[in-house]
Amino acid sequence: MKLTQYSDYGIRVLTYLGLEPQQQATVGEIAAAFDISRNHLMKVVQQLAGQGFVESRRGKLGGLRLARAPQDIGVGEVIRALENDFDLVECMRDRRDCRIAPVCRFSKLVAEANLAFLAVLDRYTLSDLLQDTGRRQELRTLLHPDQPISSGAG
Amino acid sequence: MKLTQYSDYGIRVLTYLGLEPQQQATVGEIAAAFDISRNHLMKVVQQLAGQGFVESRRGKLGGLRLARAPQDIGVGEVIRALENDFDLVECMRDRRDCRIAPVCRFSKLVAEANLAFLAVLDRYTLSDLLQDTGRRQELRTLLHPDQPISSGAG
Repeated sequence: MKLTQYSDYGIRVLTYLGLEPQQQATVGEIAAAFDISRNHLMKVVQQLAGQGFVESRRGKLGGLRLARAPQDIGVGEVIRALENDFDLVECMRDRRDCRIAPVCRFSKLVAEANLAFLAVLDRYTLSDLLQDTGRRQELRTLLHPDQPISSGAG
Repeated sequence: MKLTQYSDYGIRVLTYLGLEPQQQATVGEIAAAFDISRNHLMKVVQQLAGQGFVESRRGKLGGLRLARAPQDIGVGEVIRALENDFDLVECMRDRRDCRIAPVCRFSKLVAEANLAFLAVLDRYTLSDLLQDTGRRQELRTLLHPDQPISSGAG
């Protein structure tokens, strides 16, 4: 069982932006910080913008930033928006795929289990991913290894 | 988010065998009933046998049957045995995949959500998938369209 790369990258983008919510960042800068494909990230960012998680401003002074405060961005909400589907078994997508689909209960159990999965993620926000000052500082150091450690912003 | 085809096919095999737990079946017969690849199914059956869910007897009078009663086969247990991993995000497999893996909390939230997912499946057994007589009869009709409806076995 796996989440898509979309969810993975989406959480990375939001973590990056959430570390400095007042600053703008570019897709290229985030791709470089995580050492991942700029093109893949671009699609994820477009979806995050479309779903109202990030704001994207064009032009010379443009860039990306969070559209909402980290404590107002639910992890479950993000995963629901970025996973292209929660059809965990084929028959949930196309009932013709399996002969017994009309009476099989397995897909119903899986759907129930999936709700429990998302309910756990719904208990957390982006703020929980960034939480304490120590963690924020460690995240900053990992994402900006060349920058001096700032003692100011907590 | 998706379960592997292994889990999907594994549940199909157990459902097929669970419908007639006293009878033996062959992999070819089950593959034909679901109109799926015999080769794919063979690997799943080997794993189901290895994990003690089905018994496989060789020879002329050989075949497959459930190794335990349907009410003793937990759905969660089957999915745990057949999914090759529950590393839902890349960093759970290889922490080098993401720069912030050492301090990131996302994989922990996902692991917690996954436990909730499996806990729901743990509430059900193969018996719940076969349950009432009406459902069993419908399943039989779908899997054995050429056989007359038997009024005997419930």
